Amino acid sequence: MWIMRQAGRYLPEYRKLRESVDFKTATKTPEVAARITLQPLERFELDAAIIFSDIMTPLEGMGVKLDFDPGPVLEKPVRSADELALLEPEESAPFVLEALRHVRAELAADKALIGFAGAPFTLFCYLIQGQGSKDFMEARAFLRAEPDAAGRMLDVLGTSMSRYLTSQADAGADVVMLFDSWAGLLSPDVYRRFVLPVTRRVVSEVRTATRKPVIYFANGAASLLPDVREVGADVVGVDWTVPLARAVERLGPDVVVQGNLDPAALFAPEAELEQAIRHVIRGGAAARAHIFNLGHGIHRTTDPGRVAFLVDLVREASTTASTAEVGR
Amino acid sequence: MWIMRQAGRYLPEYRKLRESVDFKTATKTPEVAARITLQPLERFELDAAIIFSDIMTPLEGMGVKLDFDPGPVLEKPVRSADELALLEPEESAPFVLEALRHVRAELAADKALIGFAGAPFTLFCYLIQGQGSKDFMEARAFLRAEPDAAGRMLDVLGTSMSRYLTSQADAGADVVMLFDSWAGLLSPDVYRRFVLPVTRRVVSEVRTATRKPVIYFANGAASLLPDVREVGADVVGVDWTVPLARAVERLGPDVVVQGNLDPAALFAPEAELEQAIRHVIRGGAAARAHIFNLGHGIHRTTDPGRVAFLVDLVREASTTASTAEVGR
Repeated sequence: MWIMRQAGRYLPEYRKLRESVDFKTATKTPEVAARITLQPLERFELDAAIIFSDIMTPLEGMGVKLDFDPGPVLEKPVRSADELALLEPEESAPFVLEALRHVRAELAADKALIGFAGAPFTLFCYLIQGQGSKDFMEARAFLRAEPDAAGRMLDVLGTSMSRYLTSQADAGADVVMLFDSWAGLLSPDVYRRFVLPVTRRVVSEVRTATRKPVIYFANGAASLLPDVREVGADVVGVDWTVPLARAVERLGPDVVVQGNLDPAALFAPEAELEQAIRHVIRGGAAARAHIFNLGHGIHRTTDPGRVAFLVDLVREASTTASTAEVGR
Repeated sequence: MWIMRQAGRYLPEYRKLRESVDFKTATKTPEVAARITLQPLERFELDAAIIFSDIMTPLEGMGVKLDFDPGPVLEKPVRSADELALLEPEESAPFVLEALRHVRAELAADKALIGFAGAPFTLFCYLIQGQGSKDFMEARAFLRAEPDAAGRMLDVLGTSMSRYLTSQADAGADVVMLFDSWAGLLSPDVYRRFVLPVTRRVVSEVRTATRKPVIYFANGAASLLPDVREVGADVVGVDWTVPLARAVERLGPDVVVQGNLDPAALFAPEAELEQAIRHVIRGGAAARAHIFNLGHGIHRTTDPGRVAFLVDLVREASTTASTAEVGR
């Protein structure tokens, strides 16, 4: 069990620390990033820490100029592979690897450390659009209008993230995760044509190089589950809109699933929250194993008391075997 | 066949007209709204016109202060039914009804006129959040934290939109449509508890009062299709992420479907666009009838030449019977 965005603004200690350091500086200062990464584990009995960083962070090392406000904003959109250098993680993002070493050294042996990267298509969305969007239409139009140029960009992003995740594993990450936050904007045919091959390559390269498990989370991908399965990750993250039992049915019983409590359920009265949590636990029971998580990042206005309630209940309701199997 | 957002910024004649009148004024001036509504039909052989308006437009008549920038922005969020007056369409939104009368008088007899409203949950999202959002977390949290207050708001919105659609039908709309743009943010259990009952009531009231067909479009609702079916609309709109054949399978063969070409496909080379269009036509063949449309609003940078290509191809590929059955 862990919680997406568990090191974040819902924690008063995080907000306090961020009073004196901006987001970008925090991600680039290993001591600060390590400190923030460990904060939720000091409060809650979680099974894993996830490194404090952003999916856009490594793109600076590929020559992309960007800032956060609070979402990523690029100096200008990038629309060609020629504008992208291949990532050299040790040179371009040493602070992330350093932060992982810090955390792994401080973290208890029975806790897993998760490294992560953005999946190629999601990074492509931000590069083409130049900032966040609710539909990334420009990115989706570019994919159709310039399939070759798009394919070359996705390839450079894939190779770079493959190297990046491998370096993170070498620096101490026990598990690595690929976030495909915008894959759900694609129909299955477009996903299969442009996104599946490069994403599968990243997962396969990282697994071969590191022998460590890979989690793949495609948000909003209710329509894509059979395709997501083909990415070949060890663990498939499921968002909150798909009942977990139905996701397991569609993914097959040999898959390990991660998810998927609705972050909004943490605002419900306790009895109802408990019911929602038990529903998720029952839903994951048919899978090979189930890593309990939210179905999306925790919201900044969430009461940490509710998170304590959640963690205690999941601990009590689930066996150690089923929650820890995919850990270290 | 018609196209969501067909009267809009991709048309040079729309952009020209909007140089001298802002969006809100255009929606509130019957002659201008009627003119804009008819623009796409002067260019393309579409089967239906949809009244130029916004789902938020009637909320002003319920006491909500709002502007468009370009999405809706409320003076302040509304979080209680006490702040909402029931809509009296003839008093509070007479300009929409007047625009419908204008259009119906000018439109050829064999073309359908579509009226529309926002579905209760989607309007609720904007009221609680106060503006657009990619996840409307505050609205979703409010639903869980204050289920009674939320239920009362949804009820007032439902009753108001039921009256509004009925008035639109009386003013000349041949078909009415409920847009549930944000329903896809909900898991099936939350949708069934909070959204399905009030939405079903609106559809049922409008059908009983007007004897005219109702279209329900829940965007991003791949996980909700069986629940969406229970809303009881005559036509179910399907977004572009679900292959249409799969949607028909899940909705059942007795449903009329509307959709669902990916708006991004209009940026593909012609041969590929043709393939995508034929794929949608084949996908709809198993349904009782199929109204060809995009799976979301057309993007403002779309080439109108591509729309002409689309319209010609759909006309040529489909029989008159299957596209016109649900029209007038």
